[in-house]
Amino acid sequence: MRLYGYWRSSAAYRLRIALGLKGLGWEDVPVHLVKGEQQEATYLAKNPIGLVPTLELDDGTLLTQSLAILDWLEEVYPTPALLPSNPLERARVRAAAHTIAVDTHPIQNAGVVKHLKTDFGASQEQGIAWMTHWMKRGFAAFQALAAPDTEFAMGDAPSLADICLIPQLYNAHRWGLDLAPYPRLTEIERNCLALPAFANAVPEAQPDAE
Amino acid sequence: MRLYGYWRSSAAYRLRIALGLKGLGWEDVPVHLVKGEQQEATYLAKNPIGLVPTLELDDGTLLTQSLAILDWLEEVYPTPALLPSNPLERARVRAAAHTIAVDTHPIQNAGVVKHLKTDFGASQEQGIAWMTHWMKRGFAAFQALAAPDTEFAMGDAPSLADICLIPQLYNAHRWGLDLAPYPRLTEIERNCLALPAFANAVPEAQPDAE
Repeated sequence: MRLYGYWRSSAAYRLRIALGLKGLGWEDVPVHLVKGEQQEATYLAKNPIGLVPTLELDDGTLLTQSLAILDWLEEVYPTPALLPSNPLERARVRAAAHTIAVDTHPIQNAGVVKHLKTDFGASQEQGIAWMTHWMKRGFAAFQALAAPDTEFAMGDAPSLADICLIPQLYNAHRWGLDLAPYPRLTEIERNCLALPAFANAVPEAQPDAE
Repeated sequence: MRLYGYWRSSAAYRLRIALGLKGLGWEDVPVHLVKGEQQEATYLAKNPIGLVPTLELDDGTLLTQSLAILDWLEEVYPTPALLPSNPLERARVRAAAHTIAVDTHPIQNAGVVKHLKTDFGASQEQGIAWMTHWMKRGFAAFQALAAPDTEFAMGDAPSLADICLIPQLYNAHRWGLDLAPYPRLTEIERNCLALPAFANAVPEAQPDAE
């Protein structure tokens, strides 16, 4: 498998964690988002919305959208499971994951903040305030939905919820968000980053890290 | 089941379509988003991020996040299927759905546009330009991912992709976006709205429509 990603992309980071947890190997293909390589015709032919990640299978099949790819991974490589088997419990894990992956990350993604700067004259400081505003909303909700006393967000094994949370916490650190109101999240982060699949997936450990 | 929603909410609209397609009955509980009822403590206790929809089951169980609820519905009420059975085809349907539900709708949601106005002094006109900017990106990508010649977006039966597309097209009409560049989407819309489950779910047909 070939993973088209970028070291600092939250969505690519999610896939690196999941591939690692499932013990799968892959080849990294960096797409330099700051240089705009995601908007080049050759990449748009693989991923029409011009975002990372794209997962290319060995037969050339292309998969896009990190949450869709995570579901595909779970269906094709079910062990270890990233979702519980009970439908209601699955829905709870997904809901926590989506507070980050649907209702937080897309709003504060780099392309959105860039548009805010170009079209609304936002300063760097205002861009950071925008990002942290949506992160605070998402983190508070995630903390309310998380299990109160398990090793990971939703139980004693890592799940889709942890996979979505950890890259967003990376962004929070990067932009200086005070995480004191979210002690449960920093506890989950510590437990996740103690696992090789999470530690190996951090942006600074990637071949294209700058 | 009780569906906490709002007539113009895309995410609640998705659930109405899916419940209708699966032949399930439900009770509507309007949450007036413009009056801010989603931020009241009684609602936040049900849905910590303060968004609609929330689905309350007959035993009081609360489910949040429309995509998570749609997956739960598909698992518990599998007929008619809203996703193919083959994992790769499922991933393709999900990817198309997510170009709208993850990478378009959250960025141009009413709460985000409100924040744009309060924090960046955006005018009503700029707010509309913001919404249509992200819709154009999402619609172009969806059209590229859709099947070229089927009755519905991804095949000859409605799927999760149609369920996410149709409410976004409602928003596009509302804000005057020219859909001429997306002929495939208007064709899909026409075929969907000919089905009772879609027609009954349109915002204007809801009890809280104004």
